Amino acid sequence: MSSEQGPGGLFEKPAAEPLCYSVLRTHCQQYLLIVPYLLGTVCSMDVQTVNSMTCEEFVCVFGNVVERCPLIAAALWSRRPFSSTLELENGFNEFIDSLSIEGKEGILRCHPDLAGRELLAGTLTVESRGEQGQAGLTSLSSADALRMNQLNSQYKKQFGFPFVICARMSDKDRIIQQLESRVRNQQLQELHCGIEEVKSICRLRLQDIYNRAAKSTKL
Amino acid sequence: MSSEQGPGGLFEKPAAEPLCYSVLRTHCQQYLLIVPYLLGTVCSMDVQTVNSMTCEEFVCVFGNVVERCPLIAAALWSRRPFSSTLELENGFNEFIDSLSIEGKEGILRCHPDLAGRELLAGTLTVESRGEQGQAGLTSLSSADALRMNQLNSQYKKQFGFPFVICARMSDKDRIIQQLESRVRNQQLQELHCGIEEVKSICRLRLQDIYNRAAKSTKL
Repeated sequence: MSSEQGPGGLFEKPAAEPLCYSVLRTHCQQYLLIVPYLLGTVCSMDVQTVNSMTCEEFVCVFGNVVERCPLIAAALWSRRPFSSTLELENGFNEFIDSLSIEGKEGILRCHPDLAGRELLAGTLTVESRGEQGQAGLTSLSSADALRMNQLNSQYKKQFGFPFVICARMSDKDRIIQQLESRVRNQQLQELHCGIEEVKSICRLRLQDIYNRAAKSTKL
Repeated sequence: MSSEQGPGGLFEKPAAEPLCYSVLRTHCQQYLLIVPYLLGTVCSMDVQTVNSMTCEEFVCVFGNVVERCPLIAAALWSRRPFSSTLELENGFNEFIDSLSIEGKEGILRCHPDLAGRELLAGTLTVESRGEQGQAGLTSLSSADALRMNQLNSQYKKQFGFPFVICARMSDKDRIIQQLESRVRNQQLQELHCGIEEVKSICRLRLQDIYNRAAKSTKL
């Protein structure tokens, strides 16, 4: 695809794909992600593997389950042994919930803008790059990129932290709609919204890790 | 992505490089971006400059004051305006103290081994590389390197987190002596020792940031 100059920066032109396709693709990805997770075999195998990890291995594997917050995975290693992978997921949620308001705001501030400077600079984490790509944010038109940039700036000015949404459970149009809607929330209400999105991102990133393990063992 | 023979050899690396390295790469790149921002303003006005930073700028500059824990700086941005740079330093200490035992253990687990694998691999953070260099850990004899490796392994097996010491306030002989001594501490006593060392590292890293700013304005 050819690159396009303009207010959106050097975004590639959008793929000629109707919205319904991208929605379907997102749903299919969710479905494919969830199937092995529902097969207890993956989880029962995984938790033993998880419990056998050294702290370095654990942080290497789970350190970016919460974007750029390896501290959380590093803390959760103290909770081993886990009885299930669900217990590990709950651990991430409990740690996040245990933080003060400023701590929760800090978690949101560790997230990059959607379709923002870091995407253009190529400095996103691998996980975030993949998620923004799956939501179609790596191939926005200049007009959509400009609109998203304006909304992100307005949102950050309003709340003091970036807009966070589980991009893989959304798409470009819904993300823009959510930006327009959530910017009207009250401060604490929006902090809660952002943190719940972080938990959804965590859940999918954990499923990705289990899926890689399942594939590598050809289950 | 390359496969990783780690925990059961079952995982692919979650990223092309361990997460903490990509966090740091981003941090460093953004730090370089922020230096011009500091030009022409700083030192006696440090706190004014600090208070004028956007959350992205703040995290870029202070994100590695606590090793690989940008979450803490990101949280502290909520406390602006700071009345002094000392208040910012106290904020780091207060946030660390507010964490649970597992959270404090997590902070220690975000630190690399001294003269360890990451030093050899060249994947230390810029700050940690400089600190280990100043303590003479980048030029150890084979015998000293082997001894430190053995002591680090013994320490981690004992406590479940790596040995942390403010290397710039020490040297190779004292570090080895401290490793031999502290490994005999009780768990909670040693957690406290490690966290106090983290606070010393924070204080020196903050001073480095202010000094760089002062030099850049030739004050």
